[in-house]
Amino acid sequence: MNFPKEVQSLSDIFSSLPNVGPKLSNKIALYLSINAKDLAKRMSESIDEMIANTLPCKLCGNISNEELCEICQDELRVRSQIMIVEDPLDLINIESSGEYKGIYHVLNGLISPINGIGPEEIRIPEALERLKEENIDEVIIALNPTIEGEATGLYIKQEIQRFNDNVKITRLAKGIPVGGDIEYVSVQTIVDSLRSRVQF
Amino acid sequence: MNFPKEVQSLSDIFSSLPNVGPKLSNKIALYLSINAKDLAKRMSESIDEMIANTLPCKLCGNISNEELCEICQDELRVRSQIMIVEDPLDLINIESSGEYKGIYHVLNGLISPINGIGPEEIRIPEALERLKEENIDEVIIALNPTIEGEATGLYIKQEIQRFNDNVKITRLAKGIPVGGDIEYVSVQTIVDSLRSRVQF
Repeated sequence: MNFPKEVQSLSDIFSSLPNVGPKLSNKIALYLSINAKDLAKRMSESIDEMIANTLPCKLCGNISNEELCEICQDELRVRSQIMIVEDPLDLINIESSGEYKGIYHVLNGLISPINGIGPEEIRIPEALERLKEENIDEVIIALNPTIEGEATGLYIKQEIQRFNDNVKITRLAKGIPVGGDIEYVSVQTIVDSLRSRVQF
Repeated sequence: MNFPKEVQSLSDIFSSLPNVGPKLSNKIALYLSINAKDLAKRMSESIDEMIANTLPCKLCGNISNEELCEICQDELRVRSQIMIVEDPLDLINIESSGEYKGIYHVLNGLISPINGIGPEEIRIPEALERLKEENIDEVIIALNPTIEGEATGLYIKQEIQRFNDNVKITRLAKGIPVGGDIEYVSVQTIVDSLRSRVQF
């Protein structure tokens, strides 16, 4: 006994999504097929609407309804400060802090040789192009403090310095997360938070 | 800054799937919107095909391409033995053992008062109807050994005994899973495996 082929195909497609393994994709495909055809119909329509009405911002790569996203269109943003982020989820969380008034550049990925993702596969060439053309004083690298995030940040820094020695390049501070517990943070976090300690 | 409304709607729909929380649904909706519109298109088409070409088996409730599923159509299956399962995923795993030759009844859920799911919300009335009409010698309750699984099994047993005292009602053995580690199994599993111990 196998699933009907339509259910199997649907499960295969779900399993190629990020963070969705074969068990969950089977569960979702069966759930939609058996208990929730109304939901399935709405999902299919919603996907079609998303395809028809969204596109990446042609400047920063953020998801948008228009050629330029709402941040790039916003005349109050500081255009001399650009923040490099991995994806729009990170961007949205940074925006929700209300702390940053500059503009963004969304890479939509990180360099990952093991997955065959080099600088050209993500929006690094576009970032360097912008840094040559736009009048930027500071580039803030806001990538996850992981091996891939660090490597991507370092690569971008080196590429920028090939053509511009004057631009300030910074990165987000690493340290104990607010609400976190020193007992449980990694040794590397302790090291970073000690090296970056500030006057109390 | 928010997602475009089409991305937000898509994320809302994904978040109503089983085992998909708001973080994962945002990730999926953005992934499809930014990196994978081809995949999104295939997903939408695949959902439409599933809706058009699958239905629950009118006898056992298993997912099927035809009015009767391949198991209910199979003349070699033993029709006097019926196994009650929660969903087609459980059914498929049981089938893969090759150990069971009888027929099934798929509940598509478990009784769960806390979630407002009573016997009428799942396919228990249909199960009782079949047990009245078909010539059944044994009912095997194959529900998860959880609170909801046990309660659902007990309810079904009591309802059957209202009209049929002769039918044999069994359930799957509880015990140490093969390949499992006695060090880590729950106390209740130890109790059950001791009570059901067999001659070595």
